[in-house]
Amino acid sequence: MVQKRSNAGLDVSMNRERLSAPRKLLKYIEELKNTHAEIFWKLPFDDSGIAKIGKLADQYRAKGFENVVVIGIGGSSLGTLAVWKALRGACPEPGRGDKKLFFAETLDVRRLSRLLKKLRSPSVFVVVSKSGTTTETIANTAVLLDQMKNKDQAAVVTDRDSKLWHWAQKRGFDILESPRQVGGRYSVFSAVGLFPLALGGVDISRLVAGAKQITSDCLLASTEANPALRSALTIWKHWKRGKIIHDTFLFEPDLEWFGKWYRQLTGESTGKGGKGLMPTVSIGTTDLHSVAQLYLGGPDNRFTTFVSVRDHGADFVISNKSGIEELVPDISGKAFSAILDAILAGAKTAYQKKKLPFMEIKLAALSPESVGALLQMKMIEMAYLANLLGVNAFDNPQVEMYKEETRKSLHAINTKS
Amino acid sequence: MVQKRSNAGLDVSMNRERLSAPRKLLKYIEELKNTHAEIFWKLPFDDSGIAKIGKLADQYRAKGFENVVVIGIGGSSLGTLAVWKALRGACPEPGRGDKKLFFAETLDVRRLSRLLKKLRSPSVFVVVSKSGTTTETIANTAVLLDQMKNKDQAAVVTDRDSKLWHWAQKRGFDILESPRQVGGRYSVFSAVGLFPLALGGVDISRLVAGAKQITSDCLLASTEANPALRSALTIWKHWKRGKIIHDTFLFEPDLEWFGKWYRQLTGESTGKGGKGLMPTVSIGTTDLHSVAQLYLGGPDNRFTTFVSVRDHGADFVISNKSGIEELVPDISGKAFSAILDAILAGAKTAYQKKKLPFMEIKLAALSPESVGALLQMKMIEMAYLANLLGVNAFDNPQVEMYKEETRKSLHAINTKS
Repeated sequence: MVQKRSNAGLDVSMNRERLSAPRKLLKYIEELKNTHAEIFWKLPFDDSGIAKIGKLADQYRAKGFENVVVIGIGGSSLGTLAVWKALRGACPEPGRGDKKLFFAETLDVRRLSRLLKKLRSPSVFVVVSKSGTTTETIANTAVLLDQMKNKDQAAVVTDRDSKLWHWAQKRGFDILESPRQVGGRYSVFSAVGLFPLALGGVDISRLVAGAKQITSDCLLASTEANPALRSALTIWKHWKRGKIIHDTFLFEPDLEWFGKWYRQLTGESTGKGGKGLMPTVSIGTTDLHSVAQLYLGGPDNRFTTFVSVRDHGADFVISNKSGIEELVPDISGKAFSAILDAILAGAKTAYQKKKLPFMEIKLAALSPESVGALLQMKMIEMAYLANLLGVNAFDNPQVEMYKEETRKSLHAINTKS
Repeated sequence: MVQKRSNAGLDVSMNRERLSAPRKLLKYIEELKNTHAEIFWKLPFDDSGIAKIGKLADQYRAKGFENVVVIGIGGSSLGTLAVWKALRGACPEPGRGDKKLFFAETLDVRRLSRLLKKLRSPSVFVVVSKSGTTTETIANTAVLLDQMKNKDQAAVVTDRDSKLWHWAQKRGFDILESPRQVGGRYSVFSAVGLFPLALGGVDISRLVAGAKQITSDCLLASTEANPALRSALTIWKHWKRGKIIHDTFLFEPDLEWFGKWYRQLTGESTGKGGKGLMPTVSIGTTDLHSVAQLYLGGPDNRFTTFVSVRDHGADFVISNKSGIEELVPDISGKAFSAILDAILAGAKTAYQKKKLPFMEIKLAALSPESVGALLQMKMIEMAYLANLLGVNAFDNPQVEMYKEETRKSLHAINTKS
């Protein structure tokens, strides 16, 4: 295995196979690197913009509140969710300095009712919509802002001069700009993700530090030293051999939302013109008890990226107090992390024996730096992968289609009533 | 569309295409229907067994406790999770008569630490393992039971005479029997699912009533009147045409864990001998903003089942107080449910225009009856689907493979230390 240990705490291991990048891709890397335009990979380097975001968040925190409600969907919320859940867990309890972060994504009467019940203390509502005209976001905004109380605050993240921008201006809400040239799924390191995360209590300077650290490696023209390039080439090579599914197998359940974020990144960046990789997300060790049979015994159409974390911070050691050694041999006296490693090793050996191709990413820890590096590496990887597939990484032409049909349906209800 | 409205509050709509069942399958239905053996579909009909489970749960509830911790993984927890989350939501707050239900599934130091912090009041630990030798379950049991306090209680659900059975007997824990002839993924209507759900506060008699109500339809030899048969034939027919992915697109986020349960059901029942359907789970409307581009513009290799709920109980009506009509036309004055219906209708029209095949399941409500009917219908459907694919629905031969490798890895650590 080629192992690349990066400064940002992100190691990528792949089979020691010679990879060569097509000339077209090498040219694209040069363009990407040397562009003067606003582009996603530069977002973490906007020091003054990020400082402003952090300062505004600090001002809100100084005024005091308990809850942050992120009103957004898709690219407007998935990056924030990915980071927040990775760092704080699935159903987080606020820790020191943390606020409660809630997400109003889809239209859901039950969820919104539950959320409203929880908003008994002062809250900040952050409406995130690039276009400013997202149906779900605006509908949730209507209900939530109608309930605003004295000490509640509201801010908006949207494109400069969108309808939402002017709407917010009229109402005196704070407005943060989303980067116009950057699509939602590539915008986590802008105000879109950073502002609500900072409100919640995440150290965004550590997050972007991780992203910054890995960037230079990811822009190298070397298939050995550039983890994003290596990853893209490996996935693409297997795609050409019929591995049309790319499974991200996360041996850390709190990375599930990173998986969902990457699912959008893959789906919207590669799925066009009849092409596209099918992104799936598996959670270890749980899914070994759920879909391992399919993975090991079913169709051979999958490339897998195992993701795990080296340092779990704390650990549990299994005692034999309860006499469990008679149930499972070889576990008493072992640490959770060692058992987890053994299970991951077992799964990888089974994959190898079945000749199922995979690569591996190891985070140093679930730290802001590692998570930041992971997201940045994956976005750059996706730009390369789309280039290899011959599709535009940054558009999503078909999404307009169901939206148009929805508008017609909505209008039809209107005229009937 | 053929629409089948069932008594159990489960409507299944499919294209009005003539379907005919192979003779082999019709014979199989007869066998399934007339078997005298212990078999999954009969579990909801075990009135006295279910009454006993309910009674034992009542005894625990009378003694008093606040938390239920389900220690199990895969088939030992997914059914319970599917029902609990569908009825109570993703991060539920206990309602009237409800206890807090926690799940210790994988080995996760962070999650288990968080869980331990939450168990400050009396708890019931339910260890669920068919074989009684599941590594994750036993490791979690070791840590959790070591922390047991005076008022905590423990019970075990396992196969009669398993090692765990005898281990629990020695310690005086209550023991409930898991149905020996029924695999984990088909066992939700046994003590495996019903006991923890009853402890949590779910009315299990309503849950099994829904399952019972739909069963007779699902055992009919009619492709028109049998929703399980119709669903299996439709999925299979499209699988033969290259739709190797079966996407369950849930327009109700709290059904996400039903999706995960169905993912195991599909994966372990069909994934063998190089065959198998790839189950994916999408959540509406969220994933329209995440993977719709791939679904509408990417490879044409997917059959979709849309699942939605007719009655949301309450509703929100969008006011124009906040002036949102200038942002999204045609939503002010509308109810959430109407907008949601419009978005689902928009998505379906887009699928139709793109000739992407789908069927539809509508639950009357997120009630125990509807959820019970849905799970029972899907398990019977899966038995038919496996028959059509020519694989054994009930085994999982390859799972042993990574377990064997894990045992070796675990043993290796042992000898080194």
